[in-house]
Amino acid sequence: MTEALTLWTYDWVPEGPRGHVRDIRLRWACEEAGLEYRVRSVPFDNRGAEHFARQPFGQVPFLEDNGITLFESGACLLHLARKSEKLMPRDRVGEAQTLEWTIAALNSIEMVSVPWWFIGLSDDANNPLEDWMLQRLKHLEAVLAQREWLAAGRFTVADLLMADVLRVPKVLAAGDFPAIRSYVDRARARPAFKRAYDGQMSHFAAGDERRRAGAR
Amino acid sequence: MTEALTLWTYDWVPEGPRGHVRDIRLRWACEEAGLEYRVRSVPFDNRGAEHFARQPFGQVPFLEDNGITLFESGACLLHLARKSEKLMPRDRVGEAQTLEWTIAALNSIEMVSVPWWFIGLSDDANNPLEDWMLQRLKHLEAVLAQREWLAAGRFTVADLLMADVLRVPKVLAAGDFPAIRSYVDRARARPAFKRAYDGQMSHFAAGDERRRAGAR
Repeated sequence: MTEALTLWTYDWVPEGPRGHVRDIRLRWACEEAGLEYRVRSVPFDNRGAEHFARQPFGQVPFLEDNGITLFESGACLLHLARKSEKLMPRDRVGEAQTLEWTIAALNSIEMVSVPWWFIGLSDDANNPLEDWMLQRLKHLEAVLAQREWLAAGRFTVADLLMADVLRVPKVLAAGDFPAIRSYVDRARARPAFKRAYDGQMSHFAAGDERRRAGAR
Repeated sequence: MTEALTLWTYDWVPEGPRGHVRDIRLRWACEEAGLEYRVRSVPFDNRGAEHFARQPFGQVPFLEDNGITLFESGACLLHLARKSEKLMPRDRVGEAQTLEWTIAALNSIEMVSVPWWFIGLSDDANNPLEDWMLQRLKHLEAVLAQREWLAAGRFTVADLLMADVLRVPKVLAAGDFPAIRSYVDRARARPAFKRAYDGQMSHFAAGDERRRAGAR
């Protein structure tokens, strides 16, 4: 008997990050693949030893699958990708392409875009990572000008991750990258993304309710 | 018939990055696993369309394996890990742990440490990523204070990658992290690392020779 997958996220987050907390990557992957999942919460405000035991940096998400717990959204996605061909083709070449672009999203784009975004919060005018980020996006723009999806000629978990990295409003507005923009629009238009997004928004709205009830 | 693996790197780099160019990750993995490999070069100075066709950000390394080409050192490592149990255990739990810590090296540590290092090159005193980097290392220190290797109770490709991310001198000197320091020492003491390191140093020294000959 296979138990449903369990995704763990925070019980509540401020308005700002809603729709972008990384559990959405796992929700989206499960929705694409038709994998059953439930969502459980750890406290946002008090991150205890139990949380750090499962996510050593005190972050979310993490994933439970039949006795296994995995952290790091990228690792969870690659784990889920083995469960469904909808997320990753099964031929050698398609699998290699999916893997390289999944890691590229994490380590060539997000490695620059997230610190760039973080620094920009305090000092927009003088961001020491600006040129580097724009270079990376320029190279990615050249790729996406020539293809609909990154790997294997079809949507894969690599696109799910890359689109999630790119759809941060500040990143999308960083320069004039029409191919990136329409790539992100294509990804966001997928029904599975919409279900994942709505799922996350309702989850945190329920957290608002609980907080209000607790404050009374 | 299986052809040997081919690792691609630059033909030459300046002194500074030698020993840290990321082809060392692939050399090290092959040395650990006893996989046969040869090394080929793309020009450092002129990165042409052919290079970008195989590495869309104009970087190295990339890997050729029997008709497949893969870029992103992290993707190459996960690809190699499937070839040898020495790099990744074959049981579900051990594999999941190796995967999560491999991605943690790329996306929780390196995502902060590389931009932090990059900014520090120009402005050591006022690095906006300093606190974030130190937080991440603090959490990692807590993990490494309790275990010899990250995943599955033994050395895996996750340690190879994490140690390579951490052994950057500036990162190691960023704070007082004795468990991280001795972890990096353990990893660097492995004969496979030494062979990989010497291999990279000789490769770039041969590049010096060629440049000198060309300049005559």
